[in-house]
Amino acid sequence: MSLPDIESVQGRFGAIDILNAPGERTTDEAVRGNRIDFSHGDVEAFPPAPSATAAVNAAIARGGEHAYSRYRGHASIREPLAERLSCFTGVPIDPSRELIITPGTQAGLFLALSSLIGLGERAMVIEPDYFANRRIVTYLGGKVVPIPLSYDDSTTPATLELDRIRAAAADGVKVLVLSNPNNPTGVLYSADQLHEIAAIANRHGVVVVADELYSRLVYPGHTATHLRACGIDPDLCITLLGPSKSESLSGFRVGAAVGAPAVIDRMEKLLAIVNLRTSGYNQSALHSWFTEPDGWFDDRTTAHQRIRDDLVDVFTNAPGFRVRATEGGSYLFPCLPQMTVSPAEFIDELRKHTGIVVTPGGEFSPHHGGSIRLNFSQDHARAVDAARSLVQVAGEFAT
Amino acid sequence: MSLPDIESVQGRFGAIDILNAPGERTTDEAVRGNRIDFSHGDVEAFPPAPSATAAVNAAIARGGEHAYSRYRGHASIREPLAERLSCFTGVPIDPSRELIITPGTQAGLFLALSSLIGLGERAMVIEPDYFANRRIVTYLGGKVVPIPLSYDDSTTPATLELDRIRAAAADGVKVLVLSNPNNPTGVLYSADQLHEIAAIANRHGVVVVADELYSRLVYPGHTATHLRACGIDPDLCITLLGPSKSESLSGFRVGAAVGAPAVIDRMEKLLAIVNLRTSGYNQSALHSWFTEPDGWFDDRTTAHQRIRDDLVDVFTNAPGFRVRATEGGSYLFPCLPQMTVSPAEFIDELRKHTGIVVTPGGEFSPHHGGSIRLNFSQDHARAVDAARSLVQVAGEFAT
Repeated sequence: MSLPDIESVQGRFGAIDILNAPGERTTDEAVRGNRIDFSHGDVEAFPPAPSATAAVNAAIARGGEHAYSRYRGHASIREPLAERLSCFTGVPIDPSRELIITPGTQAGLFLALSSLIGLGERAMVIEPDYFANRRIVTYLGGKVVPIPLSYDDSTTPATLELDRIRAAAADGVKVLVLSNPNNPTGVLYSADQLHEIAAIANRHGVVVVADELYSRLVYPGHTATHLRACGIDPDLCITLLGPSKSESLSGFRVGAAVGAPAVIDRMEKLLAIVNLRTSGYNQSALHSWFTEPDGWFDDRTTAHQRIRDDLVDVFTNAPGFRVRATEGGSYLFPCLPQMTVSPAEFIDELRKHTGIVVTPGGEFSPHHGGSIRLNFSQDHARAVDAARSLVQVAGEFAT
Repeated sequence: MSLPDIESVQGRFGAIDILNAPGERTTDEAVRGNRIDFSHGDVEAFPPAPSATAAVNAAIARGGEHAYSRYRGHASIREPLAERLSCFTGVPIDPSRELIITPGTQAGLFLALSSLIGLGERAMVIEPDYFANRRIVTYLGGKVVPIPLSYDDSTTPATLELDRIRAAAADGVKVLVLSNPNNPTGVLYSADQLHEIAAIANRHGVVVVADELYSRLVYPGHTATHLRACGIDPDLCITLLGPSKSESLSGFRVGAAVGAPAVIDRMEKLLAIVNLRTSGYNQSALHSWFTEPDGWFDDRTTAHQRIRDDLVDVFTNAPGFRVRATEGGSYLFPCLPQMTVSPAEFIDELRKHTGIVVTPGGEFSPHHGGSIRLNFSQDHARAVDAARSLVQVAGEFAT
């Protein structure tokens, strides 16, 4: 007997295939060669701060008082966290009204967009951007209004087409979602662009969901500007943050969303039926976030910068590849050379013969199928070797 | 400036208010008196098995290999778990196709219903039943078809109105959700009723979501029959299980859903955008589930039975109260006497003056506002004292 009647939700699910999603291609699957999974960071190469894991262990040991919390998270964690995130983002945060602890930043994104997008409503999505953005909008029955990002010219700041945002806002589109640093390209938006976006949002009442998951990992010569500090109406901005990536705490599934109280309230209501709450114990992983030992995060940034520089060298010197150096975060998004096989076939061959996993650019935009995303938060030497192998395999398919 | 345009999702959120949800009334809120929170279990009174917390601590210590998993969970955990849950439920489970690890059983419920209910579609919901069932159906834009449960007469097994289920199924309703043991009443469905439900499902292609979260905690003289062992087409049944309640592991947010592969596939796709995955470390809490030391769970059942018996005594001897002894799980659902105040006012007074928190019956059905739910997984003596205080406060409002 085939499944009855769930065909009516088929469309909703058509938007959210997971074949190329991070981790799905390698875990539980035997691969050959110098296996390296560029689809997500390697927490062996960059382990969590000991204080974070110790805090979770302590919460588990203390038991009862930590198991349950309000849906939006323990007040004892939200209060000091609000203060630290206020410092980091440059605008005060009321821990009782403007902060919710989420089961990972992914959940923050799902909860925020679900709180904002009704059936048939439109949302501006950057191309390219984190692949879940357009998937969630589509899953919710919303319509994607694409906003192109120009980043090809490494000598100038990457730019969003503000005229397109202005026109969409004037036409009644009420939601904009963007990641900054941008995932997959690793570019940072300029303060000028973000002030302009804030002004458009204020003028037209657009709510902006700013996914700033990687905004702490910024390389010399660049600055992460927080949209919430760019003059946007506090009721029109939700900022997503979390220690999953740069701080290697993804295994705990904890994150935070700060901003518009009315949206935070909705996110909490939805969290209650989706998940109840972020693991009561794991919330303690946030206790030491931004309070790690002096130099711990700086060292991490420096180590990532060195890997970035070496990988950029490999791709810059490889025939036909184009790459822009990452400004924030740990992604590179090189454009592949012309080959005798399609990018999908290349990615497949690469994985089968070398065990190297990368994420297809088509996951991030319909127009970027010629690029691949690499998370370079890896063991330095192995990452460089793998990048060289990748270039070599591409060479075998040279036109 | 008021929040723009999110009014169009207002309806969706109207269905999911959380004011009376477990934990929301007490945590972060100072209360007086012999504070006891009957809205959820006390994991100090019934702590987790040491093997469960030790397994999570070990996974955190091992780091990398545990941080990330396939969205449906680590194969190394799914495989032995499938075997143990096969034994428990009496029907084989294929760990690769028929099992997904979820961030709590709540998430399993949300993911399963989201996979089955399209906009405007109908779903049968028992009255009374777990309050999230109708909320999720309504949030998804579905329509609730209520199926009454009769449980007032303690001398006979509780019964569902099968004719209502038959009629709804014949009329094209394709989804039925039920908890067994029933939350809030603590009754267990008979094997006869479950076989009939399976037959109706098979005849009309109804998918049944069976929330069996409490099915391990069953008192002498009663049996938890698993719907999936009652002849239902395996493509028509999803069973939700988890160690959050009877095993006191709620703080980890881990659960499992087993059954129809097509539904499990959808649940995984949705999990990927909602949450990515269950915390990679916390999944290890499932390793020792059903493998606790001999007698550990039996002792727990006996201890709960004693608390149940004492609370049933208190309410049976209290003027105007009516109560049915729990058959499975840790809930009592006494009906309040006639009072000079409304049940909502009584609950409010009770909380303010004694610190005792109970969950209003109206959360579980529009017709059960005269009852209250108590989770008696508490310190024995304090639970009995609190029940006596509750009866005394009710007495002060006697008509």
